[in-house]
Order: sequence, then structure tokens, then C-alpha cells
Amino acid sequence: MTNPTAAMLVIGDEILSGRTRDSNLHHLAQELTRIGISLREARVVADAHDAIVAAVRALAAAHAHVFTSGGIGPTHDDITADAVAAAMGAAIGQRADAMAILAAHYDRAGLPFNAARQRMARIPEGARLIENPISAAPGFTLGNVHVLAGVPDIFAAMLAGVLPTLTGGPPLLSQSLRVNRGEGEIAGAFGALAAEFPDLAMGSYPFVQNGAHGTNLVIRGTDPARVDAAMLRLTRLFG
Amino acid sequence: MTNPTAAMLVIGDEILSGRTRDSNLHHLAQELTRIGISLREARVVADAHDAIVAAVRALAAAHAHVFTSGGIGPTHDDITADAVAAAMGAAIGQRADAMAILAAHYDRAGLPFNAARQRMARIPEGARLIENPISAAPGFTLGNVHVLAGVPDIFAAMLAGVLPTLTGGPPLLSQSLRVNRGEGEIAGAFGALAAEFPDLAMGSYPFVQNGAHGTNLVIRGTDPARVDAAMLRLTRLFG
Repeated sequence: MTNPTAAMLVIGDEILSGRTRDSNLHHLAQELTRIGISLREARVVADAHDAIVAAVRALAAAHAHVFTSGGIGPTHDDITADAVAAAMGAAIGQRADAMAILAAHYDRAGLPFNAARQRMARIPEGARLIENPISAAPGFTLGNVHVLAGVPDIFAAMLAGVLPTLTGGPPLLSQSLRVNRGEGEIAGAFGALAAEFPDLAMGSYPFVQNGAHGTNLVIRGTDPARVDAAMLRLTRLFG
Repeated sequence: MTNPTAAMLVIGDEILSGRTRDSNLHHLAQELTRIGISLREARVVADAHDAIVAAVRALAAAHAHVFTSGGIGPTHDDITADAVAAAMGAAIGQRADAMAILAAHYDRAGLPFNAARQRMARIPEGARLIENPISAAPGFTLGNVHVLAGVPDIFAAMLAGVLPTLTGGPPLLSQSLRVNRGEGEIAGAFGALAAEFPDLAMGSYPFVQNGAHGTNLVIRGTDPARVDAAMLRLTRLFG
């Protein structure tokens, strides 16, 4: 497996209380798959310093990349930048480059660049800023941790700026076959096929449509010839 | 804080590859909030034995309840039951009670109760079965770990059977105020108010509507009088 691995850390009480439905994980998963980075794990934690620090440390040690979402706004519950700095052992303060970006943004908008807004210039020493083309307040990359906003449009826009800077592996290919039979009917032969192709991932996803049971069979891997060979076998079995 | 805590473990390659969007976390979060159990953490892992075992152990040790979703079907990638048994140090095999439920189900449906379907009767020793009113294959509770299906309708139906067996704390109350001002404008006073009410959780959630910035301010806690008192102050500040 030559694909770099990644993890996501979703930060926010609002996800765990059920107030808000996270959608950034799904978007990140699709984008990383496209560029050949393998998302292996995700965690959701509350706006709690110790929980963020522990999760960042665990994920950054285990994966090539960690992407965080949420907690970089101007309010008292926005503590991600400080927690990530603590997790990575970096100093943090209001940085001149981030201050300049924010000052220019609020000047253009005719809004006061007050103390709360200046908090968004808190960036760890040694971090590289991530551009926020929507609301200006930057994210940052510190070591292998990419810190992005939680609002979905902004998360996506910031991620689009980060992805071209990353080196992926071969694209993670996926082919699927829709079968009008229940999982329990195809499981035996499908499992035997999966055992013949240990270099591929094979999954089955049941559905019910108009009262009838069906299954989507999915084959994933990085070698196009192997994926094709397995798909041919699959189609002969169930097509 | 007298509310029991909980964690969720979402199991499935399809979530991490971006093929499927998880919706069970959001449903669980809302249901637990309603009965006064505090969801503190969630994790998503692939269909990988070691990853599931490590996550179950970590979450079961840290929380009163762990809810898992996914990986209890009949195919080779359905390994949750065995992984949870391993994590909790329990033996596992096809259990007579689960076999009887499944045999009756497939008999009614006129479908063969084959080896793949019999795999779904693999239940750890000492576990209590969780009823599946939709597709029969049961989940189970082993220690403080509740193992549920991943298909959203089935997850919800099984969860509805588990929740009445759990003891929650006082309901987690939530009140919110919608303010037509940006987060950066209200952050100072809102943060000061939050500091005055350390027993409550206060969060702010920005939105943009018709080009104008606004913020939803949310106050959460278990003492109705305290939540009301804070809401009164909040309304005077920004209402």
C-alpha cells in the first residue's frame, strides 16, 4: 500500500449535541480518495482543550496527514488553534501576517477590527497559513496537521487550497455492481472472491427498493488491472 | 455534571472512502440529548479488526455507554461482532437464541438459511440481544457496548429498543437566540457572559443569509433556572 494515510478530527459541541449535522467528513473523504490519500480514521470531539490535544497527538502520530474542522472563529469556544499548538509543542500568539490579512478584510468591510476578531490571528509559530477566500480568517498547517474552518463552504474552500500542496499516492479506484439479490444470498461467493484478491478491498452495501432487497458490491484498489480482473469475475458471478 | 457519558463508534470503509454519508451519529446525538446522556466523542474506523478492537477498548473504558454502527451483516467484511468480543475478552460463536430468530425469519420469507446468514447469529457469550424489527438479525449489548446495524432505518429501530433500558441524567436543555450580527461583533460580551455561567455550555454558530452575517447563540445545561437566567441576560445583551 503506497498511499499516504490521513485522519480527520471534527471539533465542536454542536455535532455531539445533535444540533448540527457534520458534512465535512464526507467531503474530505471524497476529495482525499480522488488524490490517492487514504482516510483511515475520523474522530469527533467537543470544544474541550484536553480532548482536542489528546486527539491531535494520537492522530498526528499515526497518519501522514490530519485535517481538523471547526473552532477557529472569534468566540470564547473557538479554542482549536491554541489546542493544536499545545498538542504539537508550538508557541502561539497573534501573528503579523494573519493580523495584516484580517485588518485589511475588516477595513474593506467597514467593520471594527476588535479584540475578538484579532483572536483569529492567533497562529502557532512555524505554521504555514491556509487561505480563506470566503471570510478571510486563515487556517494553518502545523507539521502534518491542517487546521480548517467548520462552516462547510469555508471548509471546502480552504481544503481546495491545501490539497494541491499534498503528495498523494496512486488514485484509489472504485467500481461497483448493483445486484438484485440480498446480501445473504451473495455473501458466500463474494467472500471467496475477496479472499482471492487480498490486495483489493471488497464491500457490500444492502438496500431495499420497492420492498425488494438488493446489494451494491464495491471493489476498491489502486491497480487498474487488478480492479478490472476482479470486476470481470464479479460480473460473471452475479451480473 | 450528573449525566452519564457516551461515545459512538461508526464502523465501515464506505464512510471513510466517501461512498456513503453517515447519518447515524446525528440521530444518536439527538436521541441521547433527549434522555440526558451526554455524547462526548465519536470515532469512525474502517472494517479492520485491530482498529475496531482498539477503538472499542478506548471508548468503553472512558464512557458509560458505547454505541457502534455497522458491520453486523452476513458478508466477509462484517466483522464487528467478533472484534467487539475480542475487545471485551468474551468468547463468541453462533448462539442458539439468535439462530432461532434468524431461522424463523428466513423460513417466513421462504429464503434459505445458509452459512452466510448463519454468521449473523455470531453473538458474544454473556451479551443481551437487541431486537431488529426490520431485518431480524439482532444486535447485542456486551458490557457497556451496544452493537447496532449501520443501515439508518435499522440503526434507528434497534436504538429505539435500547434507549428505554438506559438510565439517563437530567435532560440536557438547550435554548438559542438568533442575532443579526456577525460572531466577531458579539464575541466579547458573549464570552464574558459564558465566564459568569461556568456550569452552562455556550456556543455561537455563524450563518450567512442573503449576504448578511448572523449568529445563532446557544446555551445548554441541565438546570432550567440557570438556563433561563442566562437566556434572560443574553436577550438583554443582544435581543
